[in-house]
Amino acid sequence: MNTFGLKFRLTTFGESHGAGIGCVIDGVPAGLEVDKKYIQAELNKRKPGQNRFSTPRKEDDEVEILSGVFEGLSTGTPIALFIKNSNQKSKDYNDIKDLFRPGHADMTYFYKYGLRDYRGGGRSSARESAARVAGGAIALKMLESLGVKVQSGVYKIGDIESEKFDFEYAKTSEIYALDSELENAQKELISKCKKSCDSIGGAVLVNVKNIPIGLGEPLYHKLDAQLSGSLMGINGVKAVEIGEGVNASNLKGSQNNDQISKNGFLSNHSGGVLGGISNGEDINIKVHFKPTPSIFLPQSTIDADKNIVKCQLKGRHDPCIAIRGSVVAKSMVSLVIADMLLLNMSSTMSGVRGFYDV
Amino acid sequence: MNTFGLKFRLTTFGESHGAGIGCVIDGVPAGLEVDKKYIQAELNKRKPGQNRFSTPRKEDDEVEILSGVFEGLSTGTPIALFIKNSNQKSKDYNDIKDLFRPGHADMTYFYKYGLRDYRGGGRSSARESAARVAGGAIALKMLESLGVKVQSGVYKIGDIESEKFDFEYAKTSEIYALDSELENAQKELISKCKKSCDSIGGAVLVNVKNIPIGLGEPLYHKLDAQLSGSLMGINGVKAVEIGEGVNASNLKGSQNNDQISKNGFLSNHSGGVLGGISNGEDINIKVHFKPTPSIFLPQSTIDADKNIVKCQLKGRHDPCIAIRGSVVAKSMVSLVIADMLLLNMSSTMSGVRGFYDV
Amino acid sequence: MNTFGLKFRLTTFGESHGAGIGCVIDGVPAGLEVDKKYIQAELNKRKPGQNRFSTPRKEDDEVEILSGVFEGLSTGTPIALFIKNSNQKSKDYNDIKDLFRPGHADMTYFYKYGLRDYRGGGRSSARESAARVAGGAIALKMLESLGVKVQSGVYKIGDIESEKFDFEYAKTSEIYALDSELENAQKELISKCKKSCDSIGGAVLVNVKNIPIGLGEPLYHKLDAQLSGSLMGINGVKAVEIGEGVNASNLKGSQNNDQISKNGFLSNHSGGVLGGISNGEDINIKVHFKPTPSIFLPQSTIDADKNIVKCQLKGRHDPCIAIRGSVVAKSMVSLVIADMLLLNMSSTMSGVRGFYDV
Amino acid sequence: MNTFGLKFRLTTFGESHGAGIGCVIDGVPAGLEVDKKYIQAELNKRKPGQNRFSTPRKEDDEVEILSGVFEGLSTGTPIALFIKNSNQKSKDYNDIKDLFRPGHADMTYFYKYGLRDYRGGGRSSARESAARVAGGAIALKMLESLGVKVQSGVYKIGDIESEKFDFEYAKTSEIYALDSELENAQKELISKCKKSCDSIGGAVLVNVKNIPIGLGEPLYHKLDAQLSGSLMGINGVKAVEIGEGVNASNLKGSQNNDQISKNGFLSNHSGGVLGGISNGEDINIKVHFKPTPSIFLPQSTIDADKNIVKCQLKGRHDPCIAIRGSVVAKSMVSLVIADMLLLNMSSTMSGVRGFYDV
Repeated sequence: MNTFGLKFRLTTFGESHGAGIGCVIDGVPAGLEVDKKYIQAELNKRKPGQNRFSTPRKEDDEVEILSGVFEGLSTGTPIALFIKNSNQKSKDYNDIKDLFRPGHADMTYFYKYGLRDYRGGGRSSARESAARVAGGAIALKMLESLGVKVQSGVYKIGDIESEKFDFEYAKTSEIYALDSELENAQKELISKCKKSCDSIGGAVLVNVKNIPIGLGEPLYHKLDAQLSGSLMGINGVKAVEIGEGVNASNLKGSQNNDQISKNGFLSNHSGGVLGGISNGEDINIKVHFKPTPSIFLPQSTIDADKNIVKCQLKGRHDPCIAIRGSVVAKSMVSLVIADMLLLNMSSTMSGVRGFYDV
Repeated sequence: MNTFGLKFRLTTFGESHGAGIGCVIDGVPAGLEVDKKYIQAELNKRKPGQNRFSTPRKEDDEVEILSGVFEGLSTGTPIALFIKNSNQKSKDYNDIKDLFRPGHADMTYFYKYGLRDYRGGGRSSARESAARVAGGAIALKMLESLGVKVQSGVYKIGDIESEKFDFEYAKTSEIYALDSELENAQKELISKCKKSCDSIGGAVLVNVKNIPIGLGEPLYHKLDAQLSGSLMGINGVKAVEIGEGVNASNLKGSQNNDQISKNGFLSNHSGGVLGGISNGEDINIKVHFKPTPSIFLPQSTIDADKNIVKCQLKGRHDPCIAIRGSVVAKSMVSLVIADMLLLNMSSTMSGVRGFYDV
Repeated sequence: MNTFGLKFRLTTFGESHGAGIGCVIDGVPAGLEVDKKYIQAELNKRKPGQNRFSTPRKEDDEVEILSGVFEGLSTGTPIALFIKNSNQKSKDYNDIKDLFRPGHADMTYFYKYGLRDYRGGGRSSARESAARVAGGAIALKMLESLGVKVQSGVYKIGDIESEKFDFEYAKTSEIYALDSELENAQKELISKCKKSCDSIGGAVLVNVKNIPIGLGEPLYHKLDAQLSGSLMGINGVKAVEIGEGVNASNLKGSQNNDQISKNGFLSNHSGGVLGGISNGEDINIKVHFKPTPSIFLPQSTIDADKNIVKCQLKGRHDPCIAIRGSVVAKSMVSLVIADMLLLNMSSTMSGVRGFYDV
Repeated sequence: MNTFGLKFRLTTFGESHGAGIGCVIDGVPAGLEVDKKYIQAELNKRKPGQNRFSTPRKEDDEVEILSGVFEGLSTGTPIALFIKNSNQKSKDYNDIKDLFRPGHADMTYFYKYGLRDYRGGGRSSARESAARVAGGAIALKMLESLGVKVQSGVYKIGDIESEKFDFEYAKTSEIYALDSELENAQKELISKCKKSCDSIGGAVLVNVKNIPIGLGEPLYHKLDAQLSGSLMGINGVKAVEIGEGVNASNLKGSQNNDQISKNGFLSNHSGGVLGGISNGEDINIKVHFKPTPSIFLPQSTIDADKNIVKCQLKGRHDPCIAIRGSVVAKSMVSLVIADMLLLNMSSTMSGVRGFYDV
């Protein structure tokens, strides 16, 4: 099940220590500008090895366009993208070949498939998210050409939580921090955890502006349901909140309802979704990431033969996956909304007739 | 998009004020005992009008089996279930015909489809969840016959939150409370909100026991992703947490990782899922419901012509949708896990060969 | 797998001797006129018991609309239709309870599912096609409202084959004959086979006019591929030909290519499809039905315990399934084209932009 | 819609004159031997430029495995294959840049997508079938490991039709002829057409042996329906027949029914399928290919501005696409049956339980 979406569809492939990571984006309308530089710029935001807050493992993450583009435009045929793996140190993983790292998918992959590619987590590695970002860039390009804006940033590292959401600032921050005033404290917390061979959790806010009213396909492909599912599917995500989120369960109806005036809603507790359909307000989603499971402290675990073994990891890992996760979350949201835009085109007979006018 | 699941598939239909509500369950293996009484018992848990904590609107919610069962067993063909609507008061809705109720899907349905069935919310009504529960009962029956147990209850009403999760107690509680000691305070809060023409939010815990290791289909049909998407798709849900959930973003890796011993995991911060695949531990999911949007206080809104109008609702509504939502959440989780069980059957070549041995 | 189509989706349920036959049509754009009389008129064309060329078993086949329609228009939500079974004689099937009728699905259903609803073929009965016709009527209505015309008729009974295709005449013919001059000979052949306790094969032509250019989704959802698959899936169909069909393998390129002039194609060997996409010419498809497997001659077969038994059928059966199959074939073609129309709406960015203009 | 199959899924990408052709095969059970040599051997059967009966355009068609295989075994993750394009002469296509070649998809792609990659047909080129054969090789390998045999050959060139089907002989024949006695006459006909700047149609027989009883998912994913759809979707196919095929419409029930004895069916008019489910007999399917549309005779056509132009093709083309089509047909049938095998694993509760026993 490596395909995502119904009309705007992403299929990904590749492992952390194979030939590379790639994707096929199918269902892209013909005539969209597809620019290698644009995709590369998105990939660079997720690229490892850029500063001390991500893994020191450097990957060029250079994207190749293998198909689907002719004279700079999408042709309506599948767009295949490929990113070669370059800086792999499979030797780092020899020690973990026979054991199940705590917090990782080693055990579950082994039991599900009866065998396991132990090099760097194989398919379960966060490296796969490069393909999501590459595919997400095509979705984002389509959304931007239609005036829809998707942005994200980190609002929380451990318990240092911001209430200021400056997406422009986040773009320039090494940790994609949404709050310039808290950024340093957040960075220090990360550094402290890293120094003590540990890691730290964090949370991301994704925001969508200028989304048309009407996106979302009730009852089992609602906008909020798909956003939630797509974000919970990112490595390390343990909770998703839309609008008021968890806090909605604290409120009274009179507090939580968004009343409406001539100029639109008077508040946005709903986070831009009513009945699973966009209502034109900003979409706001909070995404909570667990701390990186790869820590350098000794841990107890077992091997495939159920022997107890000590797990003492080496290698190069992010101290906080929420940071690069911020870029991945933006990509997944872009993919969902692109799909919803295409799906919504046949909601009414007037739309169907519109087809004939083209 | 009214079909849910890939192999164990639920298709639902029906509106709150039409002929009835129904579903088609496709992909059920042949030979499963399908008992009308069993389905009815599940439906009765969700049925309105049972006590003062749900809507006084009474519905018999009697299920009919239209197809797919022969001599008490599923035949491998689609099972259709139908529940007639009986106690509708469409007149109650004449007043809201032309306005968009705050917190409801009236506006988004109207803009998406260009027209709207205003009687009781039409398709967007929570009444549709009866079909989810009916279909979920078939899933639950299959899971039970394989030893998997799914249960749920309410752990939080407004800000009264329990840390005791007694699922057996919940079965007997009018509000499906998980904590007998907090139950009365929770009931009082509901009553208070109801009396003041208001409503209140709440949260539900769903727990799965004895789930086999290996369920979940990475990368885009992971167990946690599907659970999250299916639950966020229930009317009124605004947040979903798995395992540590929101709190995972506060923790260090050394706190959040579940170390492993010969007898299994030493903790269950993950909530039973690693890499999108079940690890054999209990699945724990928290589901946060917003307060019922139907309140009886005056609210400001607009009509389809963008005139400002006062909205003063009548009718019969639940003061807290989390209560009956608890049953619906259990149903959705059952449907997801049933689907995952069938999908997982072809994970290895030994499974494929195993087929021949049967 | 009882769902057909990607955007315009038909899910069917029901058996020949259960409560009834039904379907859920999902993805219908809102605002389509849905009229019970229109659906009923289509069903009546397929209804058994109308003359001596179909089974003497009479069924009212009266359709009920259970959901999805408000004030005469589709609402964008699933449309459920139900047809009660009325004239069942399950006793007729007691004799065949333990044996596998030659030419029927008795054996394959039994081996696949481990049990079998033997009453009238259960789900494998041609009765199920009533649901296809009911759903097809909604598709046809949508196509007609857009100017697309779908028609069908019988051009061949046994070896009596017509080269005249008068679809208007076929509408009035008891056997939907396309050729008034051959009709009597064809009727006589059917009567002769019936009298000798036997049955006879036949073939149907389906024609589509005014189809827009551009329908079909390469590479694995091509128009011709979906038409072919949908028609081969009708009970008793053994061959499907598009345009020149089988004869294409006899021809040279210079004979088979359709050259093009200012006013369109100079011939239509292709049958209206190039590269899996409609080219604006008439779609022409030939559908070959085997003779009814239910014959009243003694046949050799086995039972579930592999004992050899004589099979001597009773009951009421069509002497030639191609006749009523003509109506079913038209329905399947309508469903495919309705789906293709909706799928095609996002083929170009100009289409996507067009959405905003609506 | 460039994905084929429900559980064993093939997604393809690539154009005739882009970087290459590739595919992602998803849903392959873990533990299958995946051998580059095996895939290459299948590709070589389809490779152009091998003799005077195919295009003189030479392509190495060397396959690379990009993902999904570890230590020689499938890992349960997507297997990506890539074949670089090498011998492209895009210049050959400059002349046709502005015109719609008769019999080709130039016109329909242009109208559907609003633009067109004119180099060698782009995505509509038969070159794409290399990806089908590469993916089909994985399916075939899985089937072979389970004892299922799929084979194909050419039984008809123009009107020279064989009734002898020697699949072993076909393997050694330059034109995959099933009949050694007719082979020379068939070759001469091809040569004659080629010399006269023309092309010729042909037909292929695909045969499946040792298929288990029970494959096929009624009602809308029947085995024969999927086979038919998958074959009609191959470039140039205009008719598909199963078992008696077209001839079934000539027969009486007493002639066409396959009676059954202790040792199985006494005949195989059905072609191995009853009620859309395999009955254990050989599957036999006839596939009719039109003549290559690329001929070197002058033809009349129009350009995108609807000017009449003369079309005089150059380039390198197969005189008879049925020959290499024989390999592609075998691949598509393998893909369908692999998918059906995986889908069938959850048909009964005993199967579900069986899973636990493994």
